[in-house]
Amino acid sequence: MARIVMKFGGTSVADLDRIRNVARHVKREVDAGNEVAVVVSAMAGKTNELVGWAQQMPRASGANLPFFDAREYDAIVASGEQVSAGLLAIALQSIGIDARSWQGWQIPIRTDGAHGAARIVDIDASTLIERFGRGQVAVVTGFQGIGPDNRIATLGRGGSDTSAVAVAAAVKADRCDIYTDVDGVYTTDPRIEPKARRLSKISFEEMLEMASLGAKVLQVRSVELAMVHKVRTFVRSSFDDPDAPGMGDPVNPPGTLICDEDEIVEQQVVTGIAYAKDEAQISLRRVSDRPGVAAGIFGPLAEAGINVDMIVQNISEDGSRTDMTFTVPSGDVDKALSVLEKVRETVGFDVLQHEAGMMKVSVIGIGMRSHAGVAATAFKALSERGINIRAITTSEIKISILIDGAYGELAVRALHSVYGLDKQ
Amino acid sequence: MARIVMKFGGTSVADLDRIRNVARHVKREVDAGNEVAVVVSAMAGKTNELVGWAQQMPRASGANLPFFDAREYDAIVASGEQVSAGLLAIALQSIGIDARSWQGWQIPIRTDGAHGAARIVDIDASTLIERFGRGQVAVVTGFQGIGPDNRIATLGRGGSDTSAVAVAAAVKADRCDIYTDVDGVYTTDPRIEPKARRLSKISFEEMLEMASLGAKVLQVRSVELAMVHKVRTFVRSSFDDPDAPGMGDPVNPPGTLICDEDEIVEQQVVTGIAYAKDEAQISLRRVSDRPGVAAGIFGPLAEAGINVDMIVQNISEDGSRTDMTFTVPSGDVDKALSVLEKVRETVGFDVLQHEAGMMKVSVIGIGMRSHAGVAATAFKALSERGINIRAITTSEIKISILIDGAYGELAVRALHSVYGLDKQ
Repeated sequence: MARIVMKFGGTSVADLDRIRNVARHVKREVDAGNEVAVVVSAMAGKTNELVGWAQQMPRASGANLPFFDAREYDAIVASGEQVSAGLLAIALQSIGIDARSWQGWQIPIRTDGAHGAARIVDIDASTLIERFGRGQVAVVTGFQGIGPDNRIATLGRGGSDTSAVAVAAAVKADRCDIYTDVDGVYTTDPRIEPKARRLSKISFEEMLEMASLGAKVLQVRSVELAMVHKVRTFVRSSFDDPDAPGMGDPVNPPGTLICDEDEIVEQQVVTGIAYAKDEAQISLRRVSDRPGVAAGIFGPLAEAGINVDMIVQNISEDGSRTDMTFTVPSGDVDKALSVLEKVRETVGFDVLQHEAGMMKVSVIGIGMRSHAGVAATAFKALSERGINIRAITTSEIKISILIDGAYGELAVRALHSVYGLDKQ
Repeated sequence: MARIVMKFGGTSVADLDRIRNVARHVKREVDAGNEVAVVVSAMAGKTNELVGWAQQMPRASGANLPFFDAREYDAIVASGEQVSAGLLAIALQSIGIDARSWQGWQIPIRTDGAHGAARIVDIDASTLIERFGRGQVAVVTGFQGIGPDNRIATLGRGGSDTSAVAVAAAVKADRCDIYTDVDGVYTTDPRIEPKARRLSKISFEEMLEMASLGAKVLQVRSVELAMVHKVRTFVRSSFDDPDAPGMGDPVNPPGTLICDEDEIVEQQVVTGIAYAKDEAQISLRRVSDRPGVAAGIFGPLAEAGINVDMIVQNISEDGSRTDMTFTVPSGDVDKALSVLEKVRETVGFDVLQHEAGMMKVSVIGIGMRSHAGVAATAFKALSERGINIRAITTSEIKISILIDGAYGELAVRALHSVYGLDKQ
């Protein structure tokens, strides 16, 4: 017997038939003697509809306001999960499973009350646990809790993953199964490299890099939370037949386990190749090299809400001037340039260059901590294919390389091959 | 300055434009210096969609259950008002009015917890009143409160009228304005008699008879509640231009005031003509006339959920047998006949007759308490037009006559005319 949290996203509960399918997944785990809490998102499309209404309303009222009250936004948007949770509870009851829905304020799931982007502060799990003992399944609305102001607060888009991991931590679950529309975490994107393999395990740290680099399987915050609370998290498919052989395997169910690195016995040097499209490169030439220059550049960009990624700084020949290169999402280039033009005087730089259509390719693996030559292998593989490297950044478990977007798919496949990821 | 509760139904908040229009109605009252709480229904069609999902789910799950958990039903269905209340709050804010939404559990509006058909037990109005003092408009979700089990409980269809009156009673409002898709209460249905006039005032008692007899302007329970707490209730149109002359008149705004009869100085003998279509007449011939017979007939019908209306009993010539006639909605005839066949032995009757396609026409007016001959006038008017009377029941302020449905419109017009209702 185990205690399991199961999370189902919007596409998994998109209509009544799919909710019925979710109920069969839950029944399988209950029949196996497990204690189960389920966390659900809103039915696919509902959240977008509600967000659209909330955003249009101020303009519809002729106010020409870009903003709206985030507390009202939360009250509106949180209604989506209320519906899917209630429907799943009914679906479970109708196949003989004792279940009830829980809204965030009922448990309660307490948040810091930062409406629209709240963080979970505390979950009182006592009632849920008490009801596990009676055999009742808890169906919890994802994406939301209650703020200190006694109003509903949502966690931001994709927050249901975070809700699931937080509930798992609170009830001390043995496992948190994230059911999604992919069947696990792959060595790279199978749409680019058909030889990509599903990983049976990946460490929290690696998953954080994979997720933040654009492998959009899990919300980054949920992985951070899982890492802190050491919640063993499975990524698996909700579209598999719930009763297929092995689906209820308590140790090795189909999917990818995200876990502490200690649990990964045979560590690979490189675990996966991630990428991020539509990056733009911005370069400031001959920046005066004095303290405070970086702050003078990146402070205003951050204030403008621009997400700066790779930053590379080279000193110039005479040591008095430097070149500064960094990347931003292509969609933010114009905004970034306008911010930079405003600080040209105070920062002091000669030339402002930019180029869109870049792609960042990243090699990820905790094994590279103890293996030399991992970066050199990447540079050689790209060089052999005539791919020019625009910028490089590295961390302990990651090498990121900026290249021309036209070579992106070629680069991903080359790196996937050179580290042996397409072999079992 | 007055304290006003304004209620808007589903068609009044059906889309963003209409919600914006509602905001203008609210702004008019706020600008006049009034303290305002608004009660809203779900956007038109939303509640039906949610109810449909909740009802289909057990069958979708292959359970073939006719029932579902009413607590989950409530959680699902109550989400509709959550959305419209949030959107209206945003619409109000965007035209410069301080407003916030309140869900039933936040105020709280406490109910008896009879999920799906809950009754309001208590409303803690202290916070709302405190915020009135700061100039804040309260936007309250209609149709719902919280049960003793800390779960959302809905009041049953049309419950937002009841919510509005209950909130008005709790905050001791000077007036409860029910905005709807008609502009008031008429002397009869204008679709049948174009000469029907809008009443400026009607007593609670008369409105109760009008409402329960099929003049579907207000939920019956809301009128009962208004009568008990003496809440002066206005029925008015949400589709009028919010800023038209007279709309903000504190004493005589356009619409119909439902109030205590003491407030109606010039009482008419007859106030209105109501009707109920699709009635069926069921007659039991030669029922043995002994104590307990009526209970033996109507008990099982009530248990089967059949709403019996007019009941007429005549004694037979020899005094040992009686004829029993009553009406049920046409849709319930088959069910009623099957119930009655089962009790034929124990009750003891010879013949079971039924006829559908009847219509009940009712003459309503508190003035008839002190005026003789009101009934005779009705009978004569119908007789002159060759309309046969099938059954008659009377109360202090109402005469109901069952006739063949084919003559229904003719009868309504005849009665409307004979009591002078088409004259100003």
